[in-house]
Order: sequence, then C-alpha cells, then structure tokens
Amino acid sequence: MSVGELFNPRSIALVGATDKSGWSISTLANLRAHGFPGPVHLVNPRGGVVHGQAAYRSLAEVPERVDLAYVMVPTAAVLGVLREGAKLGIRCYVILTAGFGEAGEEGARLEAEIAAFAAENGLTILGPNGNGYINAAAGVTPYGLPIPQPLLRGAVGVVLQSGALASSVLGFAQARNVGVSLLTSMGNESVVTVTDVIDYLVDDPATRVIALFLETIRNPAEFSRVARRALEAGKPIVALKIGRSKLASHTAQAHTGALVGDDDVIDAALRQLGVIRVRSLEDLIITAGLLASSGPLPGRRVGVVTPSGGASEIIADRAEDEGLELPPFAPETVARLAEIVPSFGTVQNPLDVTGYVLIDRTLLGRALEAVTADPGIDLIMLLSEPPKVAPPDPAPVLATYAASAGRIAASPVPVVVVSNVLTDVTEFGRRVQAETGFPYVAGGIEHGLQAIGAAVRWSEQRERVLSRPAAPLPRAVAPPEGASGVWAEHRAAALLAAAGLPVVPSELARDESAAVAAAERFGSPVVLKAAAEGLGHKSDVGGVRLGLGGAEEVRQAYREIVAAVPSLDGVLVQPQRRGGIELLVGVVRDPAWGLTLAVGLGGVWVEVLRDTALRVLPVDAGEVRTALTELRGAALLDGVRGTEPADLDAVAGVVARVAAFAESLGDGLESLEINPLLVSGSRVEALDALITWR
Amino acid sequence: MSVGELFNPRSIALVGATDKSGWSISTLANLRAHGFPGPVHLVNPRGGVVHGQAAYRSLAEVPERVDLAYVMVPTAAVLGVLREGAKLGIRCYVILTAGFGEAGEEGARLEAEIAAFAAENGLTILGPNGNGYINAAAGVTPYGLPIPQPLLRGAVGVVLQSGALASSVLGFAQARNVGVSLLTSMGNESVVTVTDVIDYLVDDPATRVIALFLETIRNPAEFSRVARRALEAGKPIVALKIGRSKLASHTAQAHTGALVGDDDVIDAALRQLGVIRVRSLEDLIITAGLLASSGPLPGRRVGVVTPSGGASEIIADRAEDEGLELPPFAPETVARLAEIVPSFGTVQNPLDVTGYVLIDRTLLGRALEAVTADPGIDLIMLLSEPPKVAPPDPAPVLATYAASAGRIAASPVPVVVVSNVLTDVTEFGRRVQAETGFPYVAGGIEHGLQAIGAAVRWSEQRERVLSRPAAPLPRAVAPPEGASGVWAEHRAAALLAAAGLPVVPSELARDESAAVAAAERFGSPVVLKAAAEGLGHKSDVGGVRLGLGGAEEVRQAYREIVAAVPSLDGVLVQPQRRGGIELLVGVVRDPAWGLTLAVGLGGVWVEVLRDTALRVLPVDAGEVRTALTELRGAALLDGVRGTEPADLDAVAGVVARVAAFAESLGDGLESLEINPLLVSGSRVEALDALITWR
Repeated sequence: MSVGELFNPRSIALVGATDKSGWSISTLANLRAHGFPGPVHLVNPRGGVVHGQAAYRSLAEVPERVDLAYVMVPTAAVLGVLREGAKLGIRCYVILTAGFGEAGEEGARLEAEIAAFAAENGLTILGPNGNGYINAAAGVTPYGLPIPQPLLRGAVGVVLQSGALASSVLGFAQARNVGVSLLTSMGNESVVTVTDVIDYLVDDPATRVIALFLETIRNPAEFSRVARRALEAGKPIVALKIGRSKLASHTAQAHTGALVGDDDVIDAALRQLGVIRVRSLEDLIITAGLLASSGPLPGRRVGVVTPSGGASEIIADRAEDEGLELPPFAPETVARLAEIVPSFGTVQNPLDVTGYVLIDRTLLGRALEAVTADPGIDLIMLLSEPPKVAPPDPAPVLATYAASAGRIAASPVPVVVVSNVLTDVTEFGRRVQAETGFPYVAGGIEHGLQAIGAAVRWSEQRERVLSRPAAPLPRAVAPPEGASGVWAEHRAAALLAAAGLPVVPSELARDESAAVAAAERFGSPVVLKAAAEGLGHKSDVGGVRLGLGGAEEVRQAYREIVAAVPSLDGVLVQPQRRGGIELLVGVVRDPAWGLTLAVGLGGVWVEVLRDTALRVLPVDAGEVRTALTELRGAALLDGVRGTEPADLDAVAGVVARVAAFAESLGDGLESLEINPLLVSGSRVEALDALITWR
Repeated sequence: MSVGELFNPRSIALVGATDKSGWSISTLANLRAHGFPGPVHLVNPRGGVVHGQAAYRSLAEVPERVDLAYVMVPTAAVLGVLREGAKLGIRCYVILTAGFGEAGEEGARLEAEIAAFAAENGLTILGPNGNGYINAAAGVTPYGLPIPQPLLRGAVGVVLQSGALASSVLGFAQARNVGVSLLTSMGNESVVTVTDVIDYLVDDPATRVIALFLETIRNPAEFSRVARRALEAGKPIVALKIGRSKLASHTAQAHTGALVGDDDVIDAALRQLGVIRVRSLEDLIITAGLLASSGPLPGRRVGVVTPSGGASEIIADRAEDEGLELPPFAPETVARLAEIVPSFGTVQNPLDVTGYVLIDRTLLGRALEAVTADPGIDLIMLLSEPPKVAPPDPAPVLATYAASAGRIAASPVPVVVVSNVLTDVTEFGRRVQAETGFPYVAGGIEHGLQAIGAAVRWSEQRERVLSRPAAPLPRAVAPPEGASGVWAEHRAAALLAAAGLPVVPSELARDESAAVAAAERFGSPVVLKAAAEGLGHKSDVGGVRLGLGGAEEVRQAYREIVAAVPSLDGVLVQPQRRGGIELLVGVVRDPAWGLTLAVGLGGVWVEVLRDTALRVLPVDAGEVRTALTELRGAALLDGVRGTEPADLDAVAGVVARVAAFAESLGDGLESLEINPLLVSGSRVEALDALITWR
C-alpha cells in the first residue's frame, strides 16, 4: 500500500464515467478546473463519447499507464474493476461506489472481498463509499462533488469521516481564507484509514496542521502512534470528534465501567496525545488556520490591542474562560502608550486605543508596536481585519495594510489578528491579505479566543508529552494463578501488598480467637471484614464492623459477620484508621483504549459529583499529579477544615505505582479498584481493594 | 422627556456641521442615503456652504421648526446650544460631542450641568459621547459613523453601551440577513438611559426582539421593571453583558459577600427576569434573529431533519449540551419516512435523508413534511440554507426554495432553519429569502443550537415569571431595636424564632447550674455554645462544645467556654441533633440589586465547590425549589448513602420564609446567615444564625 502514490498520480482513469452521473461530471470538471496536469482517461463499457471525450471500453484499452483508477461502477462490478486493474499494474484506487458495509450484510461481504483482494495484491484504495480527495497542493482533485470556488491552497490537511461535511468545511475554510493542502473523504476505510492519511500528512511538506472530523477512532493504538509522530513533527492535530452525547455515541457504553464513560476516555486520550478537541466545524477550521499561521504559541500572557472599549471587555471575559492571562503592561510600555493613546483613553491591558483610529489611521499600528516591546507578554492579540469592499482606489488601503503587515512581521512575539465578529473574508479581503502579507485573521472574538486558548494549551502539552518517552508497546504478561472472576479484598490486597504497594495491615482469622489475637496485636480499635470469594460490596450485606474495642466486641462482631455472610473464607482483622482524606483509585479496561485510570475523591464526591480525573495508561507520577489538580474538590487535598494537607507527590507516586502494577497484571485484568486510598499527609494506604478478571 | 419624539423627528438640524468632520459628513450622508423625508438643516457659526448646502449661523436662524438637534460642537459649547434650542422650543437632542463624564472631573461637571438643564426644561437627550441612532424602521438615521451597506430593516431593536461595536453589530446582522428596527449608541446616558430605550422598544410595533450590549446595569430596579414589561409584551430581551471576568468587571467585588460574586448576582437576576444572556456578539444577533422570526418555541422536543450524517451527529452532541431532547419519531412517522428515505439510509431522529438530496431535490422537503406531522415533536430543526451564488437562470432555484418555504409555513410546529456553518448570507441569498419567503436561517449548527436552546428556555421562563405577580415595590420597614453591628446566635436565632421560623430549642444559661438544668430538660446529648455580642465564628475560639452527656460534662464545658471566651452574655444550651443534611442559607445585600439569597449544601460543598444557587429577592418557594435542584450536589438531597431524602417542599418553604423574613427586616439588614439549616426528611431546623446590620 502506498498512500503517497494514491494522492500523487500522474494519470487518472475514471471508471464508470457517464454523462448521466453528477459524480462523473463533477469529478472530471474538478480535475480540469484545478489544474491536474496529467491525462484523464474515461472508461465506460459502452465506449462512445462521454463528457465530450472518447471513452475506452475497459481499463485494458487505455493505451497509457494509469496511476489511479477512480471507480464509479455499480457495487457488484467493483471487484471486477480491481481485478482488471491489478492485472494491468494499477496500484491506486478511489472507490466512490456505495452499497458496501454501510448497506448491510451482503455489502459487508463484498467489502471484505475487496479488502482481502487489495491486501493480496498490494492495492491502495480510498473508500468505498467516499467522494475521493482534493490534493490542492498538487492540483490533483479526483473528487465527486462540486468544489466550492475558489479552492484555496494552503497548509491545512483535512481528513473527514463524513462525505457530506466536505462542502461545508471547504466553504467555511474559503470564508476564513484558510487554504487546504489535502482533503480526503474517507468513506468506509476498508483499506486506507484515517491514520494512514495522518501518517502521510505528517510527512507532507505542504501540510502544517491536520484537521479531523471523526465519528470513530477505529484503532486507538495506531491513532496514538500517528498523534505522537505529529507532535514530534510539530504539526498540530485539531479534531472534531462527535459522540459526546449519549445519543450521538455509537460505541457501546455498556462495555465500560460506570465511572468511565466512553467519551470521557476518548477525551482523556486526546488530551494526553496532544490532540486539540473542538466542538464545532467553525472552531475546527479557525483553530487549524491559526496554528497553520502562527505555529506554537510561547505562553499564556496576552497583550490585547483593540480600537474598541466594548470589544476589549468582551475579550477580557473570553480570555479568562480560556485560561489566558492579560497581565498589566510594563511601566515602560505604559509610558510609551501614554504618548500614543489619546488623552481621553485609558492605557491598560486590554488596550482600547479609542475610536480615534477613524481619524488617525496610524494609531492602532503605533500602539501595537509599543506593546510588541513589552517584556512581560508572550503574544499579542490584535483586533483588526481586512476590508470587505474594494474602494474605487484600493492603493491607500493596500498601503495601510502593508504597513500593518510589516509591523506584525517585525514583532518579536507572535501577533494573532482576530476580527470583531465572524463574517466572511471577501474576495477583496483575500486580495489585501495576498498582496500585503497581512496575516491570517481568526474569525471573531468568540472563536478567535477559543483558537488562541487551544493553540497555547497545545504548545504547552506538546512540551510535556515530548519530554516523556513514547509509550512502550504493551507486552504480554501471564496473569497470576487463579486469575478469574472477582477477587475480593483478602486476595486483591494481598496481591497489592506483595507488589510492595502500601496496604493497611491485615490478618485473615478463621475463628473467633484468631480474630481476638489479631486485634490484640493491632491494638484497638480494629475493623472486621468478611472475606469471601466474589463478595464485592461487603458492607451492604453486613460484612463490615467498625470501631471494635475489647475482645468481647471482636468476638461478637466475628459471630455476626459469620451469621450474615455465607461461604466465608474467614474474617479480615485490620487496625482502624482515623482521619485523613479518602480517594478512589480505579483502573478499568476500556474496550478500545485499554486500561484507564480514574482517580477521585471518595464517598459522595465520586458518587454524587462523579468528580474523577481520567487517564489512559501508561501514566507517570507527574501526569497523576496533574490529574489530581483537575478534580473539582482538589482544594480538599490542600487541607480544609483542619485536615492535614495531602502530600501530592506521595499520593501521585502511589497512584502511578498502582497503575503500573495494574498494567503488569496483563490482558486478563478487567478492573482494579482501591476504595478508599487513605491519605494523611505523606502517609498513603489502601484500605480496601477489589480486582476483577476478564 | 419623550423618547418617542427623539426617535421620530420630522426635521433635523446638524449643529456644528462642517466639511472638516467625518462625523458631520457621515451623519448627513446617512440621513440622505436612508430616506429621511424631512428637511435637514445645517448650523455652523460661520455660515457659508457646508456639505454643498447653505448653513445657518445659529439654530435661531433656521426658518422652520426643528424636532431634533444633532450636536457636534466643541464640549464647552454644548450647553449654549441646548440653551438656544430650549428657547426655540426644540425638545430633542443627540449629543455626539465627547469630553464629558468619561474624560475626568471637569467633564463630569459639564455633564451634570447638561443633565440638570435637560431636567429643568424637559429636554430629551441621547448621549453625550454617543454616535446617535439608526431608526431603520422609520428611515431616520442621525448617526455619526458610516452605516454598512445595505441597512436591513427588520424587527430587532439594538441598544449598545458601546459606540465602537455598532459597526460590527450592523455588519454581522447584515451577514445573517437580520434587519434592525432601531439601533442606539447610548453614550454617557446622562438623560436618556438604556431602560428608557427598552421601554420605547417594548411599545414600538416595528420591534419584536430587543438585543442589548451592556457594560453596566445602572438602575437594577428600573431594568427589572422594563424587563417585566418586555416579557408581558412577549418581546424577548437578549443581552451580552460583559464583566464575567474579574478583569472586565468594573463594579467593585469588595462590596459583595464572599459567596456572592457580583456577576453571579447579575446572572441570577437576568435569569429571574427572563433575559437571555449570551456570551458573544454572534450569539446576540443569531438568537435575536431567531426569536424575531420564530416567536416563543413550544417545547424541548426537537425533530431534526438533515441531508448529512456527520452534521446530524454534531447536532445530537450540541442539542444535549443545550438541554434539548431528540426523541425517537412516532411509529407512523417512521413508517412514512421509510418510504421517503433511500434504503441505504437510517430512519431515526436526528434524521439524515442522505446525500441522495443531490439527485432528488424533493427528498429533504418530503422528509420534513413527514416529520412535521409527528405528534411527539415540539419543533423542527431543518438543516438548510439559501444558495450563495446566483446561477445563470435563478428561476429553478427560486422555485425550489419557494416550495420549501411553503412546506415550512404549512407546518403545524415551528421549523427552525439552521445552516451547517456560519458563513455570510450573500446578496443572492437575501434575494432568495425575500422573493420566496424562505425563513430566517440561524448561522451554523454551533450558534444555531445555542439560539434554539436559549429560545426554548426563554419561552419556558416567560411562562414561569408571568405566572407570578410582579415584585412589589420595596417598602420602608423599621429595623428591630438595637439593630447595629453583628448579632450573634443568641440574638439572631431569637429573632428568627419570634418570627415563627423553625429554630433548634435553646436556653441561655448564665451559670453552671442553669446550664445543667437546661441540659436535663433537653435530655442528653446537648451542645453548649458561647453567647457573646459580635462573636461570629464561635468554634474558632473554643466557644462550642458538642456531645455533652451528664451534669459533670455540662459543668466542665460551661467552665471551659467561660474561660475561653471573654465578655460572655451567657452560654447557650441546645439539644444536639444527629444525622440529616446541612444546608447553608444566606441573605446578603448586593449594593446594586439589593437582598440576594444564596442557598447551598453546607460544609465542604460550599467551602470547596462554592456550590450555591443565587436568587435576587423576592423569591417564592417554587423558585427556591428550582434553586435547590440547580446545586451540583442536589442528589444529596434525594438521599444517598442511607441518609433520609429531604422533603424539598418543606425545605423550600422554610427557605422562602427566611428570605421573606430578611426582607421584612428593612434597609438596615446587611446579611442574615443560617449555617447550618439541618434537614431530616420534612424536619427543617436552623441550628445557628448570624445577622449583620448596616
């Protein structure tokens, strides 16, 4: 398989070309309109003239070498075309034809045949049931729907698991003056997958940012691999992944643990991989366009320069939402600005240079220049945009924008230009940008600040992720003996303790006097707990007795537990801990992403608020520490109401070791839960544990 | 003062007209371009020809009656113009001139003079330091900046506390094909205020929706009054109120209680008033445009009809965010759709009729028609939009859209049209809408669903608010005797108990044996608490002893409290309550909005999560009940982990009575806090209370 060849053919055959098909008409028109330099051959079993051009009756009749066959024949005829093509040495195909896996069992069978044939013969196939692709960078556009005019070439590679959205994406990108390098409509991905295309885009010199619309992530391991490659190459991936709602999620919730919603896992995984997740097509393109223009952004401290008080206040609100900082300007900047901004204005960040810009057209530019020199600013947000309508004499306008472009280019910190509201960049606006070098304009304060926030977070996350080694490939590990069903506390805790993890001391007593003896060794008060195979929630069945003092209380409790719980292995005796903060640590196997860690505050925090932070394994202690700070109740760990502050490094260290231990248990592990993990200062101890094997 | 005369003059004088001023040029050009039918007189102290028209030297020279003077003279000359005008009987003014309150003390003094002169002489003045207004409905446009072309007339009244944003708002409204009735740039509001204009718009037959950009709400009582009027008239108010962030907020946080952030109060107040708060200019106009087109929306159950699987999944995600429901279609709808949708499609809500729409242009319309008949749907979201570019022969396109428009008009439930992405409605798009009656298109799934959600919530809130009587005007109430400083528990609780509110029984003991006798009457265990004037946090100074059993424990505790707390009034003895759920109920005076109620779960819930629900008083029990359900920890009230579920009606009843009681204490009350209010089933009891007087 060669995706590079697929996207860069020197000759194309349209197989199934016919004047009756809008797809056929569009595909040929697209190839002609967007500059495909090579020959386009038409193949129709009846021959004759199609689209005003002589058609061949079969691929075999085509007298020249064909690099790519674009297949529009009926479903049942597709495999025949591939057979013929393979014999002729044609290696690459786009299959537009539908009626395969998406249409039911018979279609799925046909699709499997195609995939198998492709694998046997080393064919590269995009589709079936996709519209093809638009390689704007190379001028190769075998694409079955009309392409909105003009097609803008640029640095954003777009991969869509939806054919119908391509027109919207292209139309919106054009309205933002964002050019694409390659756009693919994936179809059923029976051969070439989203990750194959990402892999290609990471290596594609024309692509600086990758934008995805995803319905599903078919192969998380492969996705993780290409996401890491993209990070290493410095190419951001921006993804609109649907399925946040129960309704839209096609993946079965039932397979995941109660606290680990499927989309929550995907969300955690994308963040860990440094993939920017957005929730709208607007944010997808605006964010990708920004990053294609700006590259990484160096920090959160933003200097804001605007000609509007109202806008600068909207910006202040939205910047806070995005976690951006608008620090006060340095004294020297304030002094410079005081000489520039009219006396009725106020020098502050965000800066409103006032409506006097209408009188003095240099005002905004001079203020920008002053702010670029501020030593405490990582980047500048400039409120501006190209004009919409060409004046009779455009020269002065072009000169003004060229001057701004020069100032922006000369700035030692990145300058991100944002418009007030999200309206189209017009044809004249595009001309101004092209002729003056005026940079990309993020569309509107609302989406522009979302994009800046996302770009800043991506830049930070990239540093973090690349500072850690790539996750090793999981290795097969033999599970412990007898690993099946549910291991209740007495077996689970013993396994943890044997691995050197901190577990509350415990003795398994099989009669009253053993329990009393154990209690005496621990000193009162003690806890007695039923130890029985497969017993999950001991306290629900009267299997737990707390705060036991003397021997008689221990005996009594032992008898009550024996009476309450059938088929006991014995009774666990433990010292009773007091105070501290209870955490829940769970490792659950997600059917797609593998083992995931959920850490949260125990009790009502997790039951009522579902206040847990998720990570896909592996994680290190640093990542766990970050996860702990994400909890809504994180302040509890700092010690409120007189409780001792938790030693976050100690907690994170233990939790990371629990996670590593869970991974070491191999593929047989379904879940491991420690609830509670008790934290008192730097003392961290598991008070209960439960392991479920697959 | 007459705002109606201000906005509907039959003749206008531009005072300070000069060829040198862009404002003067723009104002006259605007009046001429947008069809002002009456005479426009120019006044310049030097006379001569201005803007190609003979100018008068003074208002007195103008031979005809002047209804409105548009004043652009230097700051110091403004009052003189008003004096002259008043003498001539000119009642209405727009003052564009700046340099008043916004420019410092001297300016503020001049502005106060103007306001006083206006009040004495019954003048109506918009500004100073504003750009004027655009009465698009009447074609009266005394406005000092260029108006983006074309100015679209419509049903949205726009009121802006920012001059610089007007162009953005008009430009964006035009891009959405949203017409305005009136747009005002308020300036310093020294005479005519935002609420005066809202009042006018409520009565203006051309206005169906009111859109606001607010930096501040100067007069909450007046704002509440006009908001109620707007609700009664069925005219939604949509507001972009800045100041959500600390940085953007100009109102002093310091004046408000720790748990009652200033913007949180505004947010609560706006919701209570049925004002839709949005966070972007895009949402402001898209939401206003939707409501101007749709009116109230009857419910949350949305049927979604699209030609795209990808889009319908994005819609499902965003609909859930907005609290909208996408119920399954009724069996008869499914049956009808099964005959319409191609066999490779899936009949479900959200409906994707498939890309076959490109072949069969009636497909979407027929599917829409089937869904309009569904009995379980309150409204329909149709993914569609007018075309951007005119084809050589527009007739077939116009016919297609006319057919769609007819189906939409015939639907028994509202059909909201939403486009895929937010791109401009082009000139041809506007023509298609105008000629075919194709309705308003909410711009893009992201903002469109925000707008639908806001419109549905507004429709619900309107019903709720109007079902209650308007809040009575606050009446002056004498505070209780000695109302000053901080009233600690023994005085605050007594006041609550005297008002019939449920307070834990309590006796004030002034010696050990009185304490023991009280404890015996209550039965053990009891609580002893220090009773001392001005003592806020008793437990911090060792003033609280819990769980006391026999006489000796009570004596001991009494002695310890006396030793720990100086200048005691005595010691409170109370029965100790066990179990139950602790709430916090606080009534705090907001400097702008008056008494506000904060109710939340006590302890760490309020300290760590700040999990409180806010309401501006007055509130009834129904509103308090709604507030309780908004708490993130609301599930705790339903009983988790074996606690008894709280009787929400009982709790809400007591809290509403506390709020009413706080109001009855009059203007002297600064705050009243009950912490905790203990709830066990239907038993609700204040265990501690604190009152602070102003």
